[in-house]
Amino acid sequence: MQNFLNLCRAAIGEDYVLHEPEAQAPYLQDWRQRATGKCLAVVKPANTAQVALLVRLCAEHQVPIVPQGGNTGLVLGSIPDQSGTAIVMSLQRLNKIREIDTANSTITVDAGCLLETIQNAADQADFLFPLSLASEGSCTIGGNLSTNAGGTAVLHYGNTRELCLGLEVVTADGDIWNGLRGLRKDNTGYDLRDLLIGAEGTLGIITGAVLKLYPKPKSQGTAFIALDNITQAVALLHLAKQQCHANLTGFELINQLSLELVHQHFPQYQKIFQYATRFYVLLELSTYDNEQVTKQLLEHLITTAFEQELVVDAVIANSIAQAKNCWALRESISAAQAKEGKNIKHDISLPISKIADFVQDTDTALRLAFPSSRMVTFGHLGDGNLHYNVSPPFGADQDGFLQHQTEINRIVHDKTHQYGGSISAEHGIGTLKKHELLLYKSPVEIKLMRAIKHALDPHNIMNPGKIL
Amino acid sequence: MQNFLNLCRAAIGEDYVLHEPEAQAPYLQDWRQRATGKCLAVVKPANTAQVALLVRLCAEHQVPIVPQGGNTGLVLGSIPDQSGTAIVMSLQRLNKIREIDTANSTITVDAGCLLETIQNAADQADFLFPLSLASEGSCTIGGNLSTNAGGTAVLHYGNTRELCLGLEVVTADGDIWNGLRGLRKDNTGYDLRDLLIGAEGTLGIITGAVLKLYPKPKSQGTAFIALDNITQAVALLHLAKQQCHANLTGFELINQLSLELVHQHFPQYQKIFQYATRFYVLLELSTYDNEQVTKQLLEHLITTAFEQELVVDAVIANSIAQAKNCWALRESISAAQAKEGKNIKHDISLPISKIADFVQDTDTALRLAFPSSRMVTFGHLGDGNLHYNVSPPFGADQDGFLQHQTEINRIVHDKTHQYGGSISAEHGIGTLKKHELLLYKSPVEIKLMRAIKHALDPHNIMNPGKIL
Repeated sequence: MQNFLNLCRAAIGEDYVLHEPEAQAPYLQDWRQRATGKCLAVVKPANTAQVALLVRLCAEHQVPIVPQGGNTGLVLGSIPDQSGTAIVMSLQRLNKIREIDTANSTITVDAGCLLETIQNAADQADFLFPLSLASEGSCTIGGNLSTNAGGTAVLHYGNTRELCLGLEVVTADGDIWNGLRGLRKDNTGYDLRDLLIGAEGTLGIITGAVLKLYPKPKSQGTAFIALDNITQAVALLHLAKQQCHANLTGFELINQLSLELVHQHFPQYQKIFQYATRFYVLLELSTYDNEQVTKQLLEHLITTAFEQELVVDAVIANSIAQAKNCWALRESISAAQAKEGKNIKHDISLPISKIADFVQDTDTALRLAFPSSRMVTFGHLGDGNLHYNVSPPFGADQDGFLQHQTEINRIVHDKTHQYGGSISAEHGIGTLKKHELLLYKSPVEIKLMRAIKHALDPHNIMNPGKIL
Repeated sequence: MQNFLNLCRAAIGEDYVLHEPEAQAPYLQDWRQRATGKCLAVVKPANTAQVALLVRLCAEHQVPIVPQGGNTGLVLGSIPDQSGTAIVMSLQRLNKIREIDTANSTITVDAGCLLETIQNAADQADFLFPLSLASEGSCTIGGNLSTNAGGTAVLHYGNTRELCLGLEVVTADGDIWNGLRGLRKDNTGYDLRDLLIGAEGTLGIITGAVLKLYPKPKSQGTAFIALDNITQAVALLHLAKQQCHANLTGFELINQLSLELVHQHFPQYQKIFQYATRFYVLLELSTYDNEQVTKQLLEHLITTAFEQELVVDAVIANSIAQAKNCWALRESISAAQAKEGKNIKHDISLPISKIADFVQDTDTALRLAFPSSRMVTFGHLGDGNLHYNVSPPFGADQDGFLQHQTEINRIVHDKTHQYGGSISAEHGIGTLKKHELLLYKSPVEIKLMRAIKHALDPHNIMNPGKIL
């Protein structure tokens, strides 16, 4: 191994092969500080050629590679295991914006660019790069691509996969595949791009990408809406799509308890309604027209919704400050639930038509098994993505409740599966959900996935033990 | 083989194993009547289970399978070769609309459904299924998915890949993979869906799909615009995207010769402008608002374009009849060129920013090699997709000119490659472009594609000889 490490040093320079425990530490612990792995070394190549050189060395010496971007993943996919046999390959030094092609509405970037850097570069060129996540100041686009990240703008712009036109990838053999195509149409063989996207570094290392840019919307309208049930929310979503189509850019569901916890723990945010209802929707429109047009569109939608008895009450934000307050209420739910105490989180998605039944059915099953458990249910209803988080009964022993995590996961994921949903909407599998994956994927799909993994990484050196 | 055919008859019924030459004929000749293959039999399973049964028989007896939908492909991908060793598997009997889920905005269909059948079913449920092709009355969705078909609505709605949420596939082992998920977010492993889409039946047989539905636009606006050059057209596209974003649903480029040929061979269509210019753009907006709003949006765009000197002249259609006339001019180009005589077609795409230079450069190269050759240049500029068709000089010997097809292809495809484009934007590879593919794809990409093919179809029975 000393020989291998010397070859790494020769390839990329001594300073970029880290072996001191203090230097390695930030690369070995996961974002939520739940696990810490061990490694042979952390290597920090400067460019794609160096990545390829290192992968060839690893292939020769059978050294596993854990590729890493901002290390902000939530499923333990970007840290090594306990064996200490792998290298962690940080892509952070590949951090250049390579090109902005305004006439093609594309930006070409290194995989190690921070998401925020790309957002800002797009903004300066008078474009929008719509991918937006809580960790955007720390996560890298390579990680976003490798996990097909979701975020708050999926309803209109799609997941990371839909925002990418081309990739540059270093394969398990250490070859560089230049698939940096800026094309909207290209039917010349297998879709390697989409196969690599979401593969969590197990099929190759993404080193660069061509991304789509969008014109910036000119104005936005925001409404906070009170409803009796999810069936109304789904009908409202349908109406909003029909009336506003691509102008509908946000549709968030919030249940009563979620909002109550926010008001309790963040009293600085203004209450919207005097009386509570069981559910709320935060709705956002974006247009390429002036504010008045956007407001008219929103008012027309809300009026129709009242006529169709889809809403109990509604408030349209009259200022940017009011709109920000609405979003602050939505974005403070996770923090409010954390202040309330420990809880068990689920990142699931469902066919939108099944969400109402799913929530009712799962709530009932959980309350039967764990009386008085409290469901903090919210999420991107427009994408079918629900954060279905379970808090212990009021005043209960929190750690005692958390010992039932496996049983609770089983109830929630069994119901998700039963209603045709996914147990990982946007976070991926990593090592955290590997065993859950085997419970719910068909043997046929697992077989196909294994065949592909074996074909593209026959020696199992690319992020081994993740996903499969 | 007799034993194999008897087993096929036992599996799906005698009537559905065709061996008479007259019965087989329509399945053996390609759409443009350029080639006719031979086969052991044409088999017509009734459902997915029968497809799986037949594939297992084929796997056991090492019989190659050519899956076929409407047999409307343009690259010889859906007919067998001359060996007579393969079976053609027609999916036409799998022709049921399985389910429309209005609240989820999805439709689940058998692979053998005609595209038109799906469009109509969506329409009756007050939705739009936006995929639209010249062959929509004959092609099947299974074929559209297997070739990732493009068509006229890609600018806003994307290719077939972007319209599909889930697949049902029979693998080369004869397993049924049920990936019929109606989810907008699902990060649970490798993206098998997008790998199967566009694989032209070489990795498995698509038997069903979950497709996205969209709300129907309420009004449309159409303009026919005269310009001096492609640089202006690209700048106009940029302006239109900025002002109208998702409301921009059509942006077609037409060169002077294209329009002249249409007027010459289809005098029934009205002329738009008194004087010719070198290029034209057919621009369409669609909105979810009334006609007046749409017209205002269009007028504002055209006014700005005049102010920025991006256009020479422009006419906004004042009636549905006028709009139809504009589209008839665009859609008659291929027919007009055919009436003019033989020509050499190219289905290419380019980064939009490179199209002006590409056309100028390629025109020059062709005129140097073949003086007075006439370029009929048109296509979906909004997607970067160009139909760059070369007609012989006026009055020249047509067959003599066509003997230079390979040289002309080489000039056009070399330039396409040089400008970062694709030699097959929407038609696929089949057997027609196999050798071209090897010229322009990198060895790394071919190696990855071969590894995947071998992994998912180790005995090479799924549409062998296509793509690779």
